[in-house]
Amino acid sequence: MPDQDALDSRMMARALQLAYKGLYTTEPNPRVGCVLVRDGEIVGEGWHARAGEGHAEVNALAQAGDRARGATAYVTLEPCSHTGKTPPCADALINAGVARVVAAMQDPNPLVAGKGLARLRDAGIQVECGLQEAEARALNPGFIKRMQTGMPYVRVKLAMSLDGRTAMANGESQWITGPDARADVQRLRARSGAVISGADAVLLDDSALTVRAAELGLPEVEAAAAAARQPLRVLVDGRLRVPLENRLFREAGPLLVACKLLRGRVQGYVFAGAELLTLPDKAQEYVDLKALLLELAKRGCNEVLVESGARLAGAFVNAGLVDELVVYMAPRLLGSRARPLLELPFDTMAEAMQLDVTDMRVVGRDWRITARPVFPS
Amino acid sequence: MPDQDALDSRMMARALQLAYKGLYTTEPNPRVGCVLVRDGEIVGEGWHARAGEGHAEVNALAQAGDRARGATAYVTLEPCSHTGKTPPCADALINAGVARVVAAMQDPNPLVAGKGLARLRDAGIQVECGLQEAEARALNPGFIKRMQTGMPYVRVKLAMSLDGRTAMANGESQWITGPDARADVQRLRARSGAVISGADAVLLDDSALTVRAAELGLPEVEAAAAAARQPLRVLVDGRLRVPLENRLFREAGPLLVACKLLRGRVQGYVFAGAELLTLPDKAQEYVDLKALLLELAKRGCNEVLVESGARLAGAFVNAGLVDELVVYMAPRLLGSRARPLLELPFDTMAEAMQLDVTDMRVVGRDWRITARPVFPS
Repeated sequence: MPDQDALDSRMMARALQLAYKGLYTTEPNPRVGCVLVRDGEIVGEGWHARAGEGHAEVNALAQAGDRARGATAYVTLEPCSHTGKTPPCADALINAGVARVVAAMQDPNPLVAGKGLARLRDAGIQVECGLQEAEARALNPGFIKRMQTGMPYVRVKLAMSLDGRTAMANGESQWITGPDARADVQRLRARSGAVISGADAVLLDDSALTVRAAELGLPEVEAAAAAARQPLRVLVDGRLRVPLENRLFREAGPLLVACKLLRGRVQGYVFAGAELLTLPDKAQEYVDLKALLLELAKRGCNEVLVESGARLAGAFVNAGLVDELVVYMAPRLLGSRARPLLELPFDTMAEAMQLDVTDMRVVGRDWRITARPVFPS
Repeated sequence: MPDQDALDSRMMARALQLAYKGLYTTEPNPRVGCVLVRDGEIVGEGWHARAGEGHAEVNALAQAGDRARGATAYVTLEPCSHTGKTPPCADALINAGVARVVAAMQDPNPLVAGKGLARLRDAGIQVECGLQEAEARALNPGFIKRMQTGMPYVRVKLAMSLDGRTAMANGESQWITGPDARADVQRLRARSGAVISGADAVLLDDSALTVRAAELGLPEVEAAAAAARQPLRVLVDGRLRVPLENRLFREAGPLLVACKLLRGRVQGYVFAGAELLTLPDKAQEYVDLKALLLELAKRGCNEVLVESGARLAGAFVNAGLVDELVVYMAPRLLGSRARPLLELPFDTMAEAMQLDVTDMRVVGRDWRITARPVFPS
């Protein structure tokens, strides 16, 4: 049935589009879209906006009303079969009399994967799964990774010159990249469950790590919705070096400080509203980064953005904890005395890290390179 | 006359295509193409292949024969009006009875610019100039620069990792980039009048700096023609440090060694067939790079390729002698101990060099970035 195949493709593409409307707001939940189609016409559309509110299927069913009977439901993720903050979506589809369900992918949680689809099949509904699965997976890299491994999806954002430098030796670094790249970074923050920075970077740049509606480069309503959900800000500061005068403490929003031990500015940090977490590594030398990521995943962070200096970013990369590098490259040469992109103490070519460049594009006057570390298998 | 305009555009585009056939062989002459059109049909095509052989116009006229009478000639460069190794092309077009000449650009030599066109006009031929001029200029950046300034067009080729490094601290550097990038570099060599390297790079890589037909990635006949004209190889070696055992001396092809003073390996170099040139700078510290480029231009080098280490390449950039950087970026991280892209001793952001990225594209498994330094005006 080539006509049916074409219709299926078009409708799933629409469901994916709808899912993207939740890009900046669904954390810790996944982004999901749903389209209900009867006799070749869309009778209902829905997407998940934020935790505690209606799931995509329920929103689409509400729009369709009686016209859901006998319809095909296109969903970007297997409908849930368990009762969470809302009743199971599989039951809602069954009760509405939907005849066919096409899902892009199974639930990534191995404990529940397939159960929602089985429930639909048991109710006599025709069920298919796997249409545009790659696109559906790209929607929720963090949710999928967290469900499957208990770790968040970690992005490291870097801004460099063409010769791979992030700042002059004296620390000068502001505005290496242009306003479009900075807005792109704001959007990376907005889609993340947490933004991690280190004491070095915060002391240098005095960044607040917040999402600012006016700087997102999004339509007003979307920008306001994105900024209404601030990511958890995480400061890695083993020895609590950052003074309370920094913007990080002065601007509103949840703040977690990961340190080696509770000594020094502890009281001041707590009065300033920060939560303190002691996570020393075995050698008691640095903060245990893997333990920190596990903790963030436990708190429901799907995507984590690392915005730090070369040392902390290098430590994340070197520990094999990074899923994606997002590098903004400015058309400049900062020269050989300037600071490196990442502190990676490799001595031989055999240690060099292979990357898979997945995307490269112009962002304003700069270039954005997206790459994934390739680990020898 | 929209039809005439469309025909003119199509025919000039064809003339530019023909000119590109001479990309690897016309040095020190420019690449030029010519199309003769009568009653909307091509009656003759020609291009300049190499110095001493027929010019594009003459080759096209030979193909057209009698059918050149009343035709329009599309040429990518103003026909010459002076007698060089061949008689003036303007006269050939007049004698053949051509009715109209459309040139893409004037002769870049300010002393003769416009004279060829004037000669045609004086003979009653309808003359136009400027069609697809930007494309015609892009054909011959070196010839144009040399005619206008007495200096060659200087390209610096660099191969780096994504973090801007060219080699490990211990010198390991071979095969940072893949085979497609290396073939691309072979083609850059093949289009150049001279290839410059420095003692550091030659000692490290033992490069021969030759054009090798099998490695050009071109059709066989074209590759053979390209390799038949080897660029002048230039070694910048102030103190004649490179031993005669290096491939540079063992492989055939003209070799010029630029040094500070004639001391040490002089006799060996001369016996090996190298030409020695003493070009000390004022401080007697380094080879005078500007004087070297002037000398190469005097010898008819239009395009010069610098393939060296970070120090010499950085010196060319820092002296403002570079027109274009061609950077091959491999999807790897070599780490912060590895060698820098260019030795540029900048201390403040104000010294940072602005670039204009003119092209970025995939070359095999690597990326190629083409950029021009932007000098404050």
